[in-house]
Amino acid sequence: MPITLYDLAGADPARRFSPYCWRARLALAQKGLDVETIPWRFTERSAIGVLGSEKVPVIVDGDHVQNESWQIAEYLEATYPDRPSLFGGAGGHALARFLTGWADAVVLAGIAGLIVSDIPAILAPDDAAYFVESREKRYRKTLAEVTAGRETRVTAFREALLPLRLALRQGPFLHGEAPGYGDAIVFGGFQWARCCSPFPILEASDPVHAWRERMLDAYDGLGRSAPGFA
Amino acid sequence: MPITLYDLAGADPARRFSPYCWRARLALAQKGLDVETIPWRFTERSAIGVLGSEKVPVIVDGDHVQNESWQIAEYLEATYPDRPSLFGGAGGHALARFLTGWADAVVLAGIAGLIVSDIPAILAPDDAAYFVESREKRYRKTLAEVTAGRETRVTAFREALLPLRLALRQGPFLHGEAPGYGDAIVFGGFQWARCCSPFPILEASDPVHAWRERMLDAYDGLGRSAPGFA
Repeated sequence: MPITLYDLAGADPARRFSPYCWRARLALAQKGLDVETIPWRFTERSAIGVLGSEKVPVIVDGDHVQNESWQIAEYLEATYPDRPSLFGGAGGHALARFLTGWADAVVLAGIAGLIVSDIPAILAPDDAAYFVESREKRYRKTLAEVTAGRETRVTAFREALLPLRLALRQGPFLHGEAPGYGDAIVFGGFQWARCCSPFPILEASDPVHAWRERMLDAYDGLGRSAPGFA
Repeated sequence: MPITLYDLAGADPARRFSPYCWRARLALAQKGLDVETIPWRFTERSAIGVLGSEKVPVIVDGDHVQNESWQIAEYLEATYPDRPSLFGGAGGHALARFLTGWADAVVLAGIAGLIVSDIPAILAPDDAAYFVESREKRYRKTLAEVTAGRETRVTAFREALLPLRLALRQGPFLHGEAPGYGDAIVFGGFQWARCCSPFPILEASDPVHAWRERMLDAYDGLGRSAPGFA
């Protein structure tokens, strides 16, 4: 029986854009596990509320319900030890936690400041209203104000990716010759940007761009098959 | 026969202050290997030139000479597989590379901008002259100009440590319950600051400060036993 993944979707149910759901989706792909995804929208609280969660990703694996992308990765690693390892051992597990902190604080927060005003346009109407209200409350400004000046500010974002660029000097993926969960952690953010916004967050000459392309092609082109902008 | 480590020293030969040498020193400690350190100064080129290196750290292990802190860690991990693992497996090895990029780009570069003008005072006279000239050439400004405004700028440096703070929510060390080479990579920078400058780069209430204290105490207080400011 395939694992069920509740996966954040736009107005187009095929547009799956959550960076955290992408982390889970890639973890499942890396483990080679069958998955059935269910498109979920911000305003469909009851669909996952019965599972005890307020947010996606949520997976249902037989009798087990697991939410939160990091805990989903840990669950899959513990439950399917004979399949390819997500973390590559105890050290990888520990340092992937640091990488999650970096990706959340630098990559996701940085991308949000560049694209968040483009997101309502890809959402279903009820979700768009919820999204604008909740995010403008969080930012204490309009979404247009959040992304104002992005053509200039994108330079600082790109500079902040230097650690990624330095690591990618050593091999095609953060995990070396093949992608691991560390790659999924960071790629989730770039896939989010690609699915939500036409704004070019990376220059084509950037080694991070080349890595993003490799990640789009990984797992039989799973990332590239998703509706997106570029 | 103990491993020999050529270790950057100040005017006081006991003051060992290189962040890269500290990475190597902690890697040796983590492996539980006997080490004999030789104080080395910037202007003593010939002492390590005969070993084929222009910079420290350099280790000599029997017939094998190895320089560059990352490669020293890889050498020790490969040569002493039965001793405690530095990386904790293939995933830890790969992600420690990313962590090195982050530590170099954010921690070391950030600390340099806060303390570099304090370094000449701890150096032997010839080294101080060399250091000032070479660093002012690199920065294209005086060292006093580099650290100007540090009382204000330190706030941005502390904010950039957020990924470290997020990771340390999960356990006392980046590697979990005990420190690993990932901890050494980052700690090297903080130990450099402590050995060179009285400037307070961390607030005492910061979880990063508490982690630094734990790292100073690790390996029988190896870090704390080094002459430093705080």
